[in-house]
Amino acid sequence: MMAEASALESYLAEHRDRRMAAYMDFLRIPSISTLPANRADCHAAAEWLAAELTRAGVEHVSVNETGRHPIVYGDWLHAEGAPTVIVYGHYDVQPVDPLDLWESPPFEPIVKGHRIQGRGAADDKGQIMVHVRAAEAILATAGGLPLNLKFVFEGEEESSSEHLDAWLEENRERLRADLAVISDTGFFDGNLPAITVGLRGLSACQIDVFGPSGDLHSGSYGGTVENPISALAGILAALKGPDGRIRVPGFYDDVRPLTEADRAALAALPFDEAGYLVGTGSPELVGEAGFTTLERRGARPTLEINGVWGGFQGEGTKTIIPAHAHAKITCRLVADQRPEPVFERIRAYVAEIAPPTVRVEVRYLGGGLPSLTPIDHPATQAAARAIRATFGAEPLYIRAGGSIPVGASFEGILGLPVVLVGFTPPDDHAHAPNEWMDLRNFETAIRTIVRLWDELATLPR
Amino acid sequence: MMAEASALESYLAEHRDRRMAAYMDFLRIPSISTLPANRADCHAAAEWLAAELTRAGVEHVSVNETGRHPIVYGDWLHAEGAPTVIVYGHYDVQPVDPLDLWESPPFEPIVKGHRIQGRGAADDKGQIMVHVRAAEAILATAGGLPLNLKFVFEGEEESSSEHLDAWLEENRERLRADLAVISDTGFFDGNLPAITVGLRGLSACQIDVFGPSGDLHSGSYGGTVENPISALAGILAALKGPDGRIRVPGFYDDVRPLTEADRAALAALPFDEAGYLVGTGSPELVGEAGFTTLERRGARPTLEINGVWGGFQGEGTKTIIPAHAHAKITCRLVADQRPEPVFERIRAYVAEIAPPTVRVEVRYLGGGLPSLTPIDHPATQAAARAIRATFGAEPLYIRAGGSIPVGASFEGILGLPVVLVGFTPPDDHAHAPNEWMDLRNFETAIRTIVRLWDELATLPR
Repeated sequence: MMAEASALESYLAEHRDRRMAAYMDFLRIPSISTLPANRADCHAAAEWLAAELTRAGVEHVSVNETGRHPIVYGDWLHAEGAPTVIVYGHYDVQPVDPLDLWESPPFEPIVKGHRIQGRGAADDKGQIMVHVRAAEAILATAGGLPLNLKFVFEGEEESSSEHLDAWLEENRERLRADLAVISDTGFFDGNLPAITVGLRGLSACQIDVFGPSGDLHSGSYGGTVENPISALAGILAALKGPDGRIRVPGFYDDVRPLTEADRAALAALPFDEAGYLVGTGSPELVGEAGFTTLERRGARPTLEINGVWGGFQGEGTKTIIPAHAHAKITCRLVADQRPEPVFERIRAYVAEIAPPTVRVEVRYLGGGLPSLTPIDHPATQAAARAIRATFGAEPLYIRAGGSIPVGASFEGILGLPVVLVGFTPPDDHAHAPNEWMDLRNFETAIRTIVRLWDELATLPR
Repeated sequence: MMAEASALESYLAEHRDRRMAAYMDFLRIPSISTLPANRADCHAAAEWLAAELTRAGVEHVSVNETGRHPIVYGDWLHAEGAPTVIVYGHYDVQPVDPLDLWESPPFEPIVKGHRIQGRGAADDKGQIMVHVRAAEAILATAGGLPLNLKFVFEGEEESSSEHLDAWLEENRERLRADLAVISDTGFFDGNLPAITVGLRGLSACQIDVFGPSGDLHSGSYGGTVENPISALAGILAALKGPDGRIRVPGFYDDVRPLTEADRAALAALPFDEAGYLVGTGSPELVGEAGFTTLERRGARPTLEINGVWGGFQGEGTKTIIPAHAHAKITCRLVADQRPEPVFERIRAYVAEIAPPTVRVEVRYLGGGLPSLTPIDHPATQAAARAIRATFGAEPLYIRAGGSIPVGASFEGILGLPVVLVGFTPPDDHAHAPNEWMDLRNFETAIRTIVRLWDELATLPR
């Protein structure tokens, strides 16, 4: 049931105005998931999206309550014998402040040249629209999809996807599939098509160091009592070696080594290291010995101290030995690390190196699994062929330094490989004022997804 | 002109009620120097004290404006050929909060058994009264003092003595003397008479570590950019060695070694080290190798980190590499260290050990000189004899861990040895609710000061 190319192009040309009108209607709904005031807007966005899926020919469309913002589900399951793919996206958007930096109101989308500007244009309403329009065009012109699709569009991605995991668990049977495709990532530097093959996980903890029972006068007690800040500094300083390696015993035990292909793919990225350094404002770059900057930021685990505090922070001087001191730590994880064992190893190491002159606690603050779909995975290569055929460029393979927890949810809960293919450049102002999407990318991406379904349909199962 | 003992005792017995009434009048004036609302009260206390000095027979009494709270001056200079002593005290008091913990209103003094309770009872109005009453009694009964006295009572001691140094400089000629006597310290544990032979100085600074130009996303940049908190932790951890020694090169260069007599005097103090540890709430005591706890807290220089901060301090997790991190440090100094050179050595050391991947600044936040009048100084021994004769006990020689900047002012600006002799036990609640003075100490102390003037008058000049 491969879509006939000319019929599909005619359909897309014919429906361009309606497609743009619907895109702009969707952007007009202020579905900010973090703000209680926008709760009804989130519901409205879910209902709008459900109606649009139905109109596109998707079946069993439902708006599923979760406790806060609903999850929109729909499927088309008539491609017997063909693979089943879950398409994930989110209809909620980021808050819009600082409002005064917007050139036009965030929920009054405008088109300027090749750009459509408005909150959600790229993240993620625009990319949801790509999928809805691709399915609609195939169904309208070929009478059916080449594979089975299950759409899962949530409304809490920008507020930590609180209810997604439970919903996935509850609907495990309904969500049986072979693969998940997520269009919530982007291109590489400038506008270079890319597939994100790895997302890092996270393991967060807090170190609390307790010394005297109250702040002590440094004149009366200084020099006789352990200073909790000194003890904490010693612990924090011992977390990494001069070679940039994390010194927590066992920290790297579960790390899947980079293959030669992985390293070659990262080395092939057109990366301006000098420009990257300038962008940070730091005097120079650092990192784990034996790895490149791109490997360090995306493909290797890290440990960062996110915050530290204790004692007096005001103007001038206060001569105390503080009673306690604290630090927040997060580790970015790569396959096949898991958050809790990493935390346990940090806790054991801190307990080992902490001086007996203070009491030290290390508390787990949560985490998420890393996800990795290798470059040579058939689904990754199918996506690569789809991009090559539609964007006319060889896709880059990137590893995002950050963590998209939903990637790990589909891998971890449903046991699916995840293909992360998004169509928006890094400077799209997602999460910032004047978010935009390039309409040429939007149009081409519809063709990419059409092609991707064809490619995946032909894969041996 | 030695005061005749029986006449003096008769005078003191006869004037006991008036003495107590004046003491309580003085305590009723809420001369809190830090609070702008009490400015007029501070002036009133100065005027009250000036009138009381005049009534006692002190001459050339004046209330000297300083820009905030005045300095009360008075003298008696008719003991030709005899030494001249400056008596320093302060008529201002600490704030009174938390008010709800006071058993009686702080400025409505009450007498309960042997205690007089009220703000300033010990610190320092009570001790000023000792000196005024001693001079009055001698002048009334012997017709003249055995030496020359110059009284300097300031009103800003509890708010950093902002104007004292300038006033001492301006009045250097008028303040020519052989010695300064300050009664603003106290006894040792319980109620053991003591002479404070050393006060520590202070050198304060702040370390600022700057990394990226703004907080960076730890997913996108983690592992490639130096974390300012890590860099700061490394610096702070390198300030002290495992032996408790401060590792700043040259830090100990100017430290006057403890003599055998100094160490013997400290070892003679009845010090309950186990009780001291329990009081701190720390798991165990620490300190510089080769020194006892009492030596560490009073006779050796220290370096303490008073505060640290940087990055995220809230609930949960924020995955950033912070742009900067900071620490506050104060060193307690001993003779013959000086604040600025100590700061310069810290700055040089930090510059040497800071990694090139961050920018580090070390800023001076002020300091004060240490002061030391040795045990074998003739004036210290005169005070010891006076205490022995009146309290019937061998005085202890203590080194206060804290800093009383005025001690250093008299040493540093006027070039005078300073004898620190005070008459109030450590649990007198100075700076806390329910401040009190033992009236038996108060009465005996008047005799101690009378005797001290006799002792000092006979010293070879």
